[in-house]
Amino acid sequence: MMRTGLQLASRASRRGPVFARASRTTRSWTCTRSQSTAAATSPEHPPFAASTGSLQLPSTISQVLDRPLQSEVVVHGWIKTLRAQKEHTFVQVSDGTTAQNLQIVVDGPVKGLQTGTALTITGTLQPSPPGLKQSVELHAKPEQVRVVGACDASYPLQKKRHGVDFLREITHLRPRTNTFAAAARVRNDLFFSLHNYFAHHGFLHLHTPILTASDCEGAGETFEILAPTEAGYTNREGPCSDYFGTPRVNLTVSGQLHLEMFAHAHPRVYTFSPSFRAEKTLSTRHLAEFAMLEAEMTFIDDLDTLLDVTTAMVRDAVTTVNPADLELLAQLVPQLASSGSPTRGKVDAAMRAEHVRAAMHRVEQLAGGYAVMTYTEAVQYLATHPRAPKWQYPVRWGADLQAEHEKFLAHQVGRPVYVTHYPRGLKPFYMLVDRVPATVPADVPVDPELKGDFTTVANYDLLVPDLGELLGGSLREHDAGALETAMVRAGLNVAAYQWYLDLRRYGGAPHGGFGLGFDRLVKHVTGLESVRDVVPVPRYYRECRY
Amino acid sequence: MMRTGLQLASRASRRGPVFARASRTTRSWTCTRSQSTAAATSPEHPPFAASTGSLQLPSTISQVLDRPLQSEVVVHGWIKTLRAQKEHTFVQVSDGTTAQNLQIVVDGPVKGLQTGTALTITGTLQPSPPGLKQSVELHAKPEQVRVVGACDASYPLQKKRHGVDFLREITHLRPRTNTFAAAARVRNDLFFSLHNYFAHHGFLHLHTPILTASDCEGAGETFEILAPTEAGYTNREGPCSDYFGTPRVNLTVSGQLHLEMFAHAHPRVYTFSPSFRAEKTLSTRHLAEFAMLEAEMTFIDDLDTLLDVTTAMVRDAVTTVNPADLELLAQLVPQLASSGSPTRGKVDAAMRAEHVRAAMHRVEQLAGGYAVMTYTEAVQYLATHPRAPKWQYPVRWGADLQAEHEKFLAHQVGRPVYVTHYPRGLKPFYMLVDRVPATVPADVPVDPELKGDFTTVANYDLLVPDLGELLGGSLREHDAGALETAMVRAGLNVAAYQWYLDLRRYGGAPHGGFGLGFDRLVKHVTGLESVRDVVPVPRYYRECRY
Repeated sequence: MMRTGLQLASRASRRGPVFARASRTTRSWTCTRSQSTAAATSPEHPPFAASTGSLQLPSTISQVLDRPLQSEVVVHGWIKTLRAQKEHTFVQVSDGTTAQNLQIVVDGPVKGLQTGTALTITGTLQPSPPGLKQSVELHAKPEQVRVVGACDASYPLQKKRHGVDFLREITHLRPRTNTFAAAARVRNDLFFSLHNYFAHHGFLHLHTPILTASDCEGAGETFEILAPTEAGYTNREGPCSDYFGTPRVNLTVSGQLHLEMFAHAHPRVYTFSPSFRAEKTLSTRHLAEFAMLEAEMTFIDDLDTLLDVTTAMVRDAVTTVNPADLELLAQLVPQLASSGSPTRGKVDAAMRAEHVRAAMHRVEQLAGGYAVMTYTEAVQYLATHPRAPKWQYPVRWGADLQAEHEKFLAHQVGRPVYVTHYPRGLKPFYMLVDRVPATVPADVPVDPELKGDFTTVANYDLLVPDLGELLGGSLREHDAGALETAMVRAGLNVAAYQWYLDLRRYGGAPHGGFGLGFDRLVKHVTGLESVRDVVPVPRYYRECRY
Repeated sequence: MMRTGLQLASRASRRGPVFARASRTTRSWTCTRSQSTAAATSPEHPPFAASTGSLQLPSTISQVLDRPLQSEVVVHGWIKTLRAQKEHTFVQVSDGTTAQNLQIVVDGPVKGLQTGTALTITGTLQPSPPGLKQSVELHAKPEQVRVVGACDASYPLQKKRHGVDFLREITHLRPRTNTFAAAARVRNDLFFSLHNYFAHHGFLHLHTPILTASDCEGAGETFEILAPTEAGYTNREGPCSDYFGTPRVNLTVSGQLHLEMFAHAHPRVYTFSPSFRAEKTLSTRHLAEFAMLEAEMTFIDDLDTLLDVTTAMVRDAVTTVNPADLELLAQLVPQLASSGSPTRGKVDAAMRAEHVRAAMHRVEQLAGGYAVMTYTEAVQYLATHPRAPKWQYPVRWGADLQAEHEKFLAHQVGRPVYVTHYPRGLKPFYMLVDRVPATVPADVPVDPELKGDFTTVANYDLLVPDLGELLGGSLREHDAGALETAMVRAGLNVAAYQWYLDLRRYGGAPHGGFGLGFDRLVKHVTGLESVRDVVPVPRYYRECRY
């Protein structure tokens, strides 16, 4: 789309003098000692060695598999399985770049091999004999197989299947399993797809801050920072006053308020930032540190616009995931059952087929139609549904939807469902209050403490079958006076939020946004048991190793 | 490269029943109450309203400027300048999406306008009269100009120029200036270009953790976490033991060790993560929270491979930046001089032209040739150069290169220069020791405490003229025994790093990587004075507002 002037300039400089590839022994910076051909032939050239910038990374197995048959190739990877016969050694090698292992057929015995060993193999790509899973294999002689990283029998990831709980104990080794490698690739596909969606639609990416002085959320659920002082880590004024000049600094729980700063200068902004909650939970959907995607859009005053943005975004994301990885995961995940699980070690072909079907269904569901209902409609549905279970938490207008309600609702609807327009009392101060209160039908039970106040806000949550809440958002209050009233009502320290009011005082325009729990999306698409299994090095209650 | 099966499935589902666009008043989830045409015509369909996912965001000015002349368009933005004549009102409107403001010509007076006001204007795109900067303008009638966010005369960003120090006091408003908006676009271009580089070369993106139990770096320069306990924020065991079960948790200073976990499962990995240092400095190159790009590659044993990766990466990144933004920045940055600066308010055409030339030169330099020299050569150069100044810190083999040395070196070389193979004693324990020690020429001064030990490591730093260090990396020790010896030598708690040794014990292969200070790259390319000016909401010594 752009940029001829500068690109031409830089291309010209790339076409310029070809620098000799520097090697340490010949490298030199004085003219007389230089071995560089560029320096020798071009007198005006500075007499230094040079970096060419011509990329020569070793091929990955994914790249090698794209080469034509009969090619001689060099392959690097780790041994997955090993089988020695009299005249041949069969080695399955993987490097995590593809769902397929590469079968190496060596025409003789090789010493020093072990599951987990790192190898560099030179060989020829050959068609596999018919009837095998793979279509291509690598043929090599014993002397073409070089051990570049030895492994011994104490390696914890031997061939036998491990439960997900055991693998959580060895976070540093679990990326080497086919399951966690595939999950990492799926996470990567979703990550790029989401970034591309925003780039494609002209959103500006922002690094919103991790450290924040905002006391917007309850103290019990935030982590606080200790900064070094002259005397050590504490002083009388407070743990951060010596460094930051402010007594309390927290880890961010949301970048929304900071996005709003920029949304008043650029109408489409987003961030994809770590966020933190100090909740003491071991639920499968919560982490102490998690990746949150948040976006903010200005000049919109219609909640449906936000719904359409998130529907298109999630659809786009899930349809770029590699189906080969999804199929592999669906095959492997059932075998990861925890050691205490009744299905542990009892996975049969029928279970695997059912898992594959369910995995594909989850993705197709996210790529398909999304339902929409108001909170009022949701409460009526839950209160009157003939198959509704006995609720642990009461269903009534004014009370929050609990996990049990969200789960039932999404399951009954059978596809992703947006629930919109919650009671004002359940939601943060910054959400835009709807002009018209909800009309609550007679068969909807109501919290008597509301005294007939059915004021709602222009918000929405997306509930997904078998997952629960994936994302949530709202229009924001853009009138400075109304916002200040809402702050006072919420008991906030209004003096500390003058900057947030300034955004409205000076050209504050209608705007809104949302936040998506990225780890939950990855968990749902991969089918892994917990968000703890889809984050490279997860942090949660009682876990901060490494 | 992928994915016909699943994409077809999801495309098919998008071609499926077209759901009525949900609006709140007609939305309904029971069949009898439903206004949805889909529900009415397709009896098997769940009777909910639906989100269409058809994106209808309001156009940005960047999009509007691509529309043909005579189009009727709707424009949203904020007033930059305002000029009322007898029969016309001229309004410059901007929305931060392009280097160009849009000139609105209204054929009459409009009330309630003020610099900073948010407007929605309906009008017709017309060619501008010849001789003006812009080629297109928008013609509108007074009643087509709608104020969607008022602003008053207390707005701090009136037309007059502000110094960078004043703008740092209003972090929440400065994105609205042309300068900071352009810097945000440049940052965005660089961000995407770097991600694309890694995606294109098959790297896996990883979210490395922010919270870490690693005590790899000195306590004085890390931030520590306080987690909530039952009793509050402290207990006897330590500030984090109640939540994480470990007495001390820090904010990460580098994701390298965590990348290495995955580099032993996938040979190309990277992270683009916030990093933290509690240094008490107000230098133009340091922040307490900064964005660091780190990558790790396996199966490489040649430092030149790493140099080539980073050369190609930086070249790629800078050549995707929009030249229009660079030119605008070069025009505007000189006018941002701090209030104490001698050039404050004295910017003339010649100074501006010089700034534009210098800005283009900085980018062309990063897009051009990179020099390479060893640390030994660098010390010899600094010690023997006829134009070398009197050094504040001594130049001798065994002492680190200080900012004054790096600055002189890069300036003299006149292009980016890699300095490689530093003395072992200056670098962290994990760097690969070179097999052959350096040969130190007779004219190189030597630290006598080394007692002739010229052992070096396979590392490199990239020094850039007028910036200093931009990135640094190394090959890593991949032998478990040698790494353990290096840990003991460095005084580390070896028991806490068994997992890091495991990476080598079990198929540890030759590998290496680097880290790039992203904010420094943005500072250099934009020409802004400090990294504090290129981060949306910067955190540094004595600064953690918002």
